[in-house]
Amino acid sequence: MPTVAAKKKLAFPFELIRADLSRVEDEIREQARAFDPAVEGYVSYVCNTSGKRIRPALALLAGGACGGSNPDHRKLGTVLELIHIATLVHDDIMDGASVRRGMPTASAKWGNALSVLLGDCLFAHALTLTSEFEDRAISRKISQAAADVCQGEIIQTQRRFDLSLKVDEYLRIISMKTAALFASATELGARLSGASEEVQAGMREFGDALGTAYQIYDDCLDLVGDEAVVGKTLGTDLAKGKLTLPVLNLINRATDSQRAKINRMLLEKEPIELPVLAGIADYEGAIDAAVDFARDLLVGARKNLLPLGGNDFAEGLDRVVGYLDDLLVGCRR
Amino acid sequence: MPTVAAKKKLAFPFELIRADLSRVEDEIREQARAFDPAVEGYVSYVCNTSGKRIRPALALLAGGACGGSNPDHRKLGTVLELIHIATLVHDDIMDGASVRRGMPTASAKWGNALSVLLGDCLFAHALTLTSEFEDRAISRKISQAAADVCQGEIIQTQRRFDLSLKVDEYLRIISMKTAALFASATELGARLSGASEEVQAGMREFGDALGTAYQIYDDCLDLVGDEAVVGKTLGTDLAKGKLTLPVLNLINRATDSQRAKINRMLLEKEPIELPVLAGIADYEGAIDAAVDFARDLLVGARKNLLPLGGNDFAEGLDRVVGYLDDLLVGCRR
Repeated sequence: MPTVAAKKKLAFPFELIRADLSRVEDEIREQARAFDPAVEGYVSYVCNTSGKRIRPALALLAGGACGGSNPDHRKLGTVLELIHIATLVHDDIMDGASVRRGMPTASAKWGNALSVLLGDCLFAHALTLTSEFEDRAISRKISQAAADVCQGEIIQTQRRFDLSLKVDEYLRIISMKTAALFASATELGARLSGASEEVQAGMREFGDALGTAYQIYDDCLDLVGDEAVVGKTLGTDLAKGKLTLPVLNLINRATDSQRAKINRMLLEKEPIELPVLAGIADYEGAIDAAVDFARDLLVGARKNLLPLGGNDFAEGLDRVVGYLDDLLVGCRR
Repeated sequence: MPTVAAKKKLAFPFELIRADLSRVEDEIREQARAFDPAVEGYVSYVCNTSGKRIRPALALLAGGACGGSNPDHRKLGTVLELIHIATLVHDDIMDGASVRRGMPTASAKWGNALSVLLGDCLFAHALTLTSEFEDRAISRKISQAAADVCQGEIIQTQRRFDLSLKVDEYLRIISMKTAALFASATELGARLSGASEEVQAGMREFGDALGTAYQIYDDCLDLVGDEAVVGKTLGTDLAKGKLTLPVLNLINRATDSQRAKINRMLLEKEPIELPVLAGIADYEGAIDAAVDFARDLLVGARKNLLPLGGNDFAEGLDRVVGYLDDLLVGCRR
């Protein structure tokens, strides 16, 4: 059974934002210097692992699309990325992960106690930076997004192995845990360019839809991806009891006797044969349905770009949607 | 050998702030409602454990002493207490603590993964509330204090079992991990009452000295307290390799052969006979020296109250210093 050779990486129209994104990269690295010398090394380590910087890229593109970006857009990108890094440090503790992007995780290198504190430091520092924005709404919305990310993860943790999870509840979880920072990047990117309240709200919807679709893509990859291409162990969501959209779709399509078989696979911790489960999910149309759902979200996202007119950056955001759409199509068998 | 029957609890002139402190208590409990219903219960639980609310009390007293408190002082108290609670939730994970103030800890009840996220939620929510202050410096200083607390704890974690720790380094750690929130309470309490920059700086010094002396008192209790009175397991700092001022004093007074004995007790994890170590520390004057050092800090703290004039609240802060001074004297044998 073929696996999906889709690239994990969401592509960006880098030619539009290369210089600014490179400065954000510098600014992220420079943040380490704001810390005590005894702490700086840890911060540098976790900031220097080569993240994809999706959130800064979205903030810069949204700024460009809504009238042009300024230094505040870079700061927004830096802050959102630091919050994202803080959540990754804490995620790796909770997941017992030893490797991220080919490098040992902070918790593997220095233990859980230090990593809890390191995540907290990054979090507090990111929120210190937000107080530099003239507009206090920016600061409030960023802190609220950070709270949403953590709450989404709490609800996900609560509902592990809960086969009664509804699709709506799943969507709410991923909207909080993943899409909140995407939505902040695009909404606040627009706000910092002086966009109208309507455009800001539209850009928030855009980021929410894009982030949700991206998480669904990530969820599909966990089931049908190729480890060699994706670059991480697959099937980890299932092993940890995180129910993803293709699996929820499969459960919803199952007869009583089929559901009993799924229960045995997921709850009784029979060793999950990932290719077998993926094959069944594909056969039953559960993967296609997840892909279709995410693609519909992207259609909605694109509509939010229309009021921006046809500028290069708005087209750039449209291309990001197109890249993700291609990746989703690549998840089909 | 007698143990110290000192009350653990730092007393406050509650008659001055009872109504406001009770409203802060309500506001802390009300914060739970800002969270998702699935998360609210966890937040309520950790906010309802009967903390001493030292930081809100200091914010209210400082406000009263500098011209009168207003609703922003209660908000300041609420925010600082939420940050404090967040750090306690994370501390309990790191220390593997199962009981706090007679109740199961969050990590004992719901596990470490959920508790990491719960602390993060509280942290993010507290910093969301700071964005409501008109004065952005308040928000920036609070986030910075939160970052200091975490960094102080990181450095303490790094230097566990490090017998080369200098007293200056120890003081820096406790100034960050404990005194930072005390100093924020008094400095920003003054700021919110419209005090001059000089008075704000003086009140910051006051809070820093009080917080540092309070931590030294807590450190002494860990060595010489009476478990039944203090209400928690003693000797835990030593068991975890946290070197406290009385122990550092003992190390600094030791001959080479004595130091070898201390090393064996602390590093080779011989079961530490706490009463024996406390007896030696007392005999060598190491406890007295720690008490004297903290009392000197309190003398300095009191000087910072002089510019406030003789109002009731300034006298109330002076009485807080007096209570702590009494507690410190009670640590002598």
